[in-house]
Amino acid sequence: MPRVADMTSEELSRELDALKAEHSSFVAKGLALNMARGKPASEQLDLSMPLLDILGANSDWRAEDGTDCRNYGVLDGIPEAKRLMASMLDDDPENVIVFGSSSLTAMYDTVARCFDFGTVGGHAWREERSLKWLCPAPGYDRHFAITEAFGFEMIPVPMNEYGPDMDLVERLVAEDENVKGIWCVPKYSNPGGVTYSDDVVRRLAEMECAAPDFRIVWDNAYCVHHLYDEVENQDVLLDIADACVEAGNPDRYFKFASTSKITLPGAGVAAMAASPDNIALIKKQMGAQVIGYDKLNQLRHVRFLKDAEGIAAHMSAHAAIIRPKFELVLAKLEEALGTEGIARWTTPRGGYFVSFDASEGCARRIVELAREAGVIMTGAGATWPYGRDPFDSNIRIAPTLPPLEELSQAMDVFCCCVKLATVEKLLAQ
Amino acid sequence: MPRVADMTSEELSRELDALKAEHSSFVAKGLALNMARGKPASEQLDLSMPLLDILGANSDWRAEDGTDCRNYGVLDGIPEAKRLMASMLDDDPENVIVFGSSSLTAMYDTVARCFDFGTVGGHAWREERSLKWLCPAPGYDRHFAITEAFGFEMIPVPMNEYGPDMDLVERLVAEDENVKGIWCVPKYSNPGGVTYSDDVVRRLAEMECAAPDFRIVWDNAYCVHHLYDEVENQDVLLDIADACVEAGNPDRYFKFASTSKITLPGAGVAAMAASPDNIALIKKQMGAQVIGYDKLNQLRHVRFLKDAEGIAAHMSAHAAIIRPKFELVLAKLEEALGTEGIARWTTPRGGYFVSFDASEGCARRIVELAREAGVIMTGAGATWPYGRDPFDSNIRIAPTLPPLEELSQAMDVFCCCVKLATVEKLLAQ
Repeated sequence: MPRVADMTSEELSRELDALKAEHSSFVAKGLALNMARGKPASEQLDLSMPLLDILGANSDWRAEDGTDCRNYGVLDGIPEAKRLMASMLDDDPENVIVFGSSSLTAMYDTVARCFDFGTVGGHAWREERSLKWLCPAPGYDRHFAITEAFGFEMIPVPMNEYGPDMDLVERLVAEDENVKGIWCVPKYSNPGGVTYSDDVVRRLAEMECAAPDFRIVWDNAYCVHHLYDEVENQDVLLDIADACVEAGNPDRYFKFASTSKITLPGAGVAAMAASPDNIALIKKQMGAQVIGYDKLNQLRHVRFLKDAEGIAAHMSAHAAIIRPKFELVLAKLEEALGTEGIARWTTPRGGYFVSFDASEGCARRIVELAREAGVIMTGAGATWPYGRDPFDSNIRIAPTLPPLEELSQAMDVFCCCVKLATVEKLLAQ
Repeated sequence: MPRVADMTSEELSRELDALKAEHSSFVAKGLALNMARGKPASEQLDLSMPLLDILGANSDWRAEDGTDCRNYGVLDGIPEAKRLMASMLDDDPENVIVFGSSSLTAMYDTVARCFDFGTVGGHAWREERSLKWLCPAPGYDRHFAITEAFGFEMIPVPMNEYGPDMDLVERLVAEDENVKGIWCVPKYSNPGGVTYSDDVVRRLAEMECAAPDFRIVWDNAYCVHHLYDEVENQDVLLDIADACVEAGNPDRYFKFASTSKITLPGAGVAAMAASPDNIALIKKQMGAQVIGYDKLNQLRHVRFLKDAEGIAAHMSAHAAIIRPKFELVLAKLEEALGTEGIARWTTPRGGYFVSFDASEGCARRIVELAREAGVIMTGAGATWPYGRDPFDSNIRIAPTLPPLEELSQAMDVFCCCVKLATVEKLLAQ
């Protein structure tokens, strides 16, 4: 049989009938499967249950500097939590602020502070007549929601295998002082699994920006989230802070990380690192919003994870659970679509997603067909600003949450829907 | 001996020498005492240590609706936490949003959302040419810091024994559409210990506001913080929500409360209640900032405090610890200053503070003299917007943190400093 991409219209019609029948059989099963969000599976959360026992009524609730972690105070985190998070952020503890449970909230608050009050040496962004933001796409929908809320015009920048298209980024930031920043998930990116090349990191640090207060929001959400234990199978990311300092733009970056996908997503610890001047200004601005975040939860995390080695060991246990899921997804895609010439997908070595590109104009229909058959995918378009994928092509696959057996079923449904939507499209042309 | 207020200048000079000698003897002791912030004492925090054991590795981590509290999700709080906080907020669970550990952060975020994005039916406050805010004074410095950060011109409104001076409030809100809101600590107010009268609550709800988007930020921080167990010795507050609904201004209020001074200040649970329209808008706006707050901590609090009765029993144990401290402060003031005619103070039945009014022009000097003698008070002026007390008179006394013995010493120092500063002032006139 020819591959779908090469079929005649007669062959396509026959194939359509077969695929419709297959799809109907899935619909008849009444499945209820979900591959929509990058949520850890229950077995992953079980890895961190000792966290809940590590601080009890008889434990020492003092931080290493004697702070009573039960009471008010400590704006930027207890010292040992700053040290732990610094290891993830690849920075010095004194450049770190530890927040509450969500790095997304920390990023929102950081953008909001720039918007409402201004940056180091710069005025409040809200005073500008227009605001623009660069959005590497496919990217993370919740990033885009933040800049959309504050009224930034979001400019999509295509991702390639090295990171965002830097020729385009450099042109956009050089010519327009209203371009104030860029969203980056620089390691095992959401959803592409791309780790920015050293060259991309250096160009981001060095590029000439028309806006003196241009900011890189460096969401290193997957910094320790390798799928493989062998160092040679792990991606390595150049530190943006070092690159910015070397380039003479030390205040350009805000780095973020969290334990959300290390311990418990609902109850983790988030943190940022930035230049001393940025940190000093942010602490001053934060004083109106915060007395201190949950120090007991910071203490729990330090006592449970201990240090970078402790984190690495814990992440290896996560990888053992989710690696088979990623491998299953990739095997299913290869088996069903590998030779059809109608789709491409990424093969990440870490992170939480596989990025899938269907033939142009097919993504919405695929997600719709999957939903009819009881499989919820991330909405088509979600990986682009405003939910508008100009190619209607990208779909984010999140393999971690469902058990292997459900995932296997869901991928069978998905691959059927990909073929069905593509054949429909080819016949309509 | 005549009272200080009636002394001749000769008597004052002799008194000055005696007080200077007494002050010097305190300085020589090298004390280090702190009555600056309204922080619970260590024994109070001990009351809540079982909270840390109530959710362990073998506990059920599911909310009553089956939600896995360890994972992502649930923007507005798990159902049982909404119910618990509704009991404190005197409202229905469906009108409640449960936040992270800080009601101050929740208030900042709420004001920020009005400023950045707007209110129900109103535009973003940042679009106004000028913004004003009513600040009952003496009041809470961290409230004032929020409206100062967002550039509101803060207008002090004197507090009396029934609440803010409502004649003035009504005039200010009626004549100026730039007056967008008012800070209120309506029960056992910070620092005066005043509970707003029914008449004040109703007038706040009913008053004609030039700004259609005027908001009352109702920080019911001390809603269950009685000093006495007997109901007849507890203050009762009229519900602002009921009053606003009755007055036809259902969207005028935002109510806040937290467990910060019930369980653990660093690791409690905060919440708000508002009209259905306000809640719907805020949830929509929050979606850009938050996936979900710490649901495990919500679950801990529900399992520990259980319900309104559980909270009341727990607060009675708090009262048993802090009531003697309040009574000691009041006895010391009465003993040293009761007949001198140079100061007034409040006798609260709940909350965290005694509000002290020295003779005009003496507060800064008193705080300075106390610091020289090793006693840190809240900065003079802190209870007024911009830290500017026009009378230089008010000092906030926070009795809860120090042990009784230290508190006794600190009050001796304080009373000496009050007399010394007043005599200095009288002699200089």
